[in-house]
Amino acid sequence: MSVIVHKYGGTSMGSVERIQNVARRVAKWHAAGHQVVVVPSAMAGETNRLLGLAKELSTQPDPRELDMLASTGEQASSALLAMALQAQGVSARSYTGWQVPVRTDNSYTKARIRSIDDARIRADLDAGRVVIVTGFQGVDDEGHITTLGRGGSDTSAVAVAAALKADECLIFTDVDGVYTTDPRVVPEARRMGVISFEEMLEMASLGSKVLQIRSVEFAGKYRVPVRVLSSLTDPLIPVEVESASGTLITFEEDQKMETAVVSGIAFSRDEAKFTLVGVPDTPGIAYSILGPVAAANIDVDMILQNQSVQGTTDFSFTVNRNEFLRTQDLLKNQVGPTVKAREIVADDKVCKVSIVGIGMRSHVGVASLMFRTLSEEGINIQMISTSEIKTSVIINDKYMELAVRALHKAFELDQDKSTAEA
Amino acid sequence: MSVIVHKYGGTSMGSVERIQNVARRVAKWHAAGHQVVVVPSAMAGETNRLLGLAKELSTQPDPRELDMLASTGEQASSALLAMALQAQGVSARSYTGWQVPVRTDNSYTKARIRSIDDARIRADLDAGRVVIVTGFQGVDDEGHITTLGRGGSDTSAVAVAAALKADECLIFTDVDGVYTTDPRVVPEARRMGVISFEEMLEMASLGSKVLQIRSVEFAGKYRVPVRVLSSLTDPLIPVEVESASGTLITFEEDQKMETAVVSGIAFSRDEAKFTLVGVPDTPGIAYSILGPVAAANIDVDMILQNQSVQGTTDFSFTVNRNEFLRTQDLLKNQVGPTVKAREIVADDKVCKVSIVGIGMRSHVGVASLMFRTLSEEGINIQMISTSEIKTSVIINDKYMELAVRALHKAFELDQDKSTAEA
Repeated sequence: MSVIVHKYGGTSMGSVERIQNVARRVAKWHAAGHQVVVVPSAMAGETNRLLGLAKELSTQPDPRELDMLASTGEQASSALLAMALQAQGVSARSYTGWQVPVRTDNSYTKARIRSIDDARIRADLDAGRVVIVTGFQGVDDEGHITTLGRGGSDTSAVAVAAALKADECLIFTDVDGVYTTDPRVVPEARRMGVISFEEMLEMASLGSKVLQIRSVEFAGKYRVPVRVLSSLTDPLIPVEVESASGTLITFEEDQKMETAVVSGIAFSRDEAKFTLVGVPDTPGIAYSILGPVAAANIDVDMILQNQSVQGTTDFSFTVNRNEFLRTQDLLKNQVGPTVKAREIVADDKVCKVSIVGIGMRSHVGVASLMFRTLSEEGINIQMISTSEIKTSVIINDKYMELAVRALHKAFELDQDKSTAEA
Repeated sequence: MSVIVHKYGGTSMGSVERIQNVARRVAKWHAAGHQVVVVPSAMAGETNRLLGLAKELSTQPDPRELDMLASTGEQASSALLAMALQAQGVSARSYTGWQVPVRTDNSYTKARIRSIDDARIRADLDAGRVVIVTGFQGVDDEGHITTLGRGGSDTSAVAVAAALKADECLIFTDVDGVYTTDPRVVPEARRMGVISFEEMLEMASLGSKVLQIRSVEFAGKYRVPVRVLSSLTDPLIPVEVESASGTLITFEEDQKMETAVVSGIAFSRDEAKFTLVGVPDTPGIAYSILGPVAAANIDVDMILQNQSVQGTTDFSFTVNRNEFLRTQDLLKNQVGPTVKAREIVADDKVCKVSIVGIGMRSHVGVASLMFRTLSEEGINIQMISTSEIKTSVIINDKYMELAVRALHKAFELDQDKSTAEA
């Protein structure tokens, strides 16, 4: 008998019929002899409806009250799922974050989980019940309701799995796994049967939207085996088949028998680039530029400083495109004059394309194949950033799809090289 | 500085604009120097929407999960009201039932309040905040969410007022007070400025829908002054005017300087009558009939047993019309054969009309004026029930409006006789 955590997103919980389908799937796992904990999101559209009401009432709603409001969505969907399971003859009980409790810090709207008490859940599991725990929310030390931010239900599910030392955490979603790249851009994209935790972390941070990055970090910290799989299949597909479907995020590298050099291509259009031209190449210049940016709570991604020419240098960095205008203002009115930049070049028509692969550690020439491929397509590389298992480039965003397709082909990602493919 | 509790119903909280109006009204009381606690219902339609989803999922939803589901409506409206107050510059904070906590027994969907901890509310009031407490809900000893049943927010408000020893509990609703009878039936019906607690209790139990009867009981037990008033007036009406409007439910009889003999006419069409004809007049016959009815959880209202004729008697009682079919089945298949009734007469076309007045205690001839009035209108009385301050009759329901109008006129309720009228 295994302990299995299921997580279902808002689309999977989006109507009475879909909730009944979720209940059928959960009931099937329960009938197969597993102890099942389910973490559902709010019904699709519900969180937006609630936050829309808040926005009508206040331009800057109090974060504490926002959490009080938004947390009701998951509470309702959890109770509905319990009823659906009971209607199918399965004993079930739902708990809110504070009932478990899921303890968090008090950073309303983006709280972090500190601990989860497993006593109540375990007692119900041992009594033969399916336990439903509201995703997305917790309670702080003073008994105020907190939420974990958008996509937080993934993190809730992984955290519950960690607390229970669950055998696997199944993230049911509207895609059937993690792909070598986005199939909407590259039709030849291939679902991976297995991906290493490090690769998944890079994919998530580089723009793949399958899993929220904090949930992957959590999985890494507590070594929770996570499987991403589809909730759109027949809910009564046999458990043995379903438990081998989707993509498993693993911590054991030897599960990937013949590791591909590059596992996937990630990309993101949410990028904007700034260059301060002709700033004095003196110690502390990077801090003079990025200090005010950090103080304004703007996250900087890539940073590049060219070699000094005649005592001045060009300094470039990228930020999320949402922060384009704020960053531009800051550089023009505050940073630029201070550091005496000759010119400030702002560009919100760039994108980031990355190759990710744990095999890059031991294979040379991977980055150079990337650069050659882009060059053969006539794509100019504006910035480069590397880590042990990924190489990212900033290019003009009109070339994004072209670059992704060319790289997918060059690294032969359309061909299955892993014998461990499920 | 007084402590004042406001309660707003679902209609008053029914849209963003209405919530803003509630916030304006509350802000006005706060600005006038009062410590204000607000108990809101869920936005109109929300509870029905949630229970509708439950009904689609299960014919007999688990009461615990129903409470988990339904309690989200008040949690959301409370958070929205806090935001609306903050947007108007008023410091405010909302609490769920479990956060206060409002402790109840564990009778899901119809729980009873056991105690309310006032520490958290009081600390916030002393810090200058408006405190919002979700209506309708509480938490049991094991940390499960409970609800108080339909209209439970009235009870929540009165209970919070009792815990805080509030100076007054204002129930804002879509009528502007308690009337001598329903103005839709009798256009001459008059709003009472003051009504005694006992009269209000009879009016509520006899079919007046202004206040939930349990909230009146609670007010009586803890002697909470309750005022029923309209939320449809201009929210910025001066506090001095508003605090003297509506109907005050009082415990001090001398507030009603010249007590009217009869204060109001209540009526209800939710009635059904059964008569078992020709049952043996032996000891224990009432129990043989009503025991099985009580065991089936059917509430019996009026009971009447005629004098014995030749060893047999006719036994009549009334139940809520919703229970008509269940009761009929029970009598036909179980009770009737057991007690050897010659015939069972079922009638779901009856109604109850009652006159209520604390003055009846000391005035004779009140009931006889009632009977004469009905007789003059040619209305046959089928059953009579009396208490110290009310007389009720069961009549054919086609005469209901006629009876109410005739009694309203006969007892001169259209004329103001109370000098304490506000």
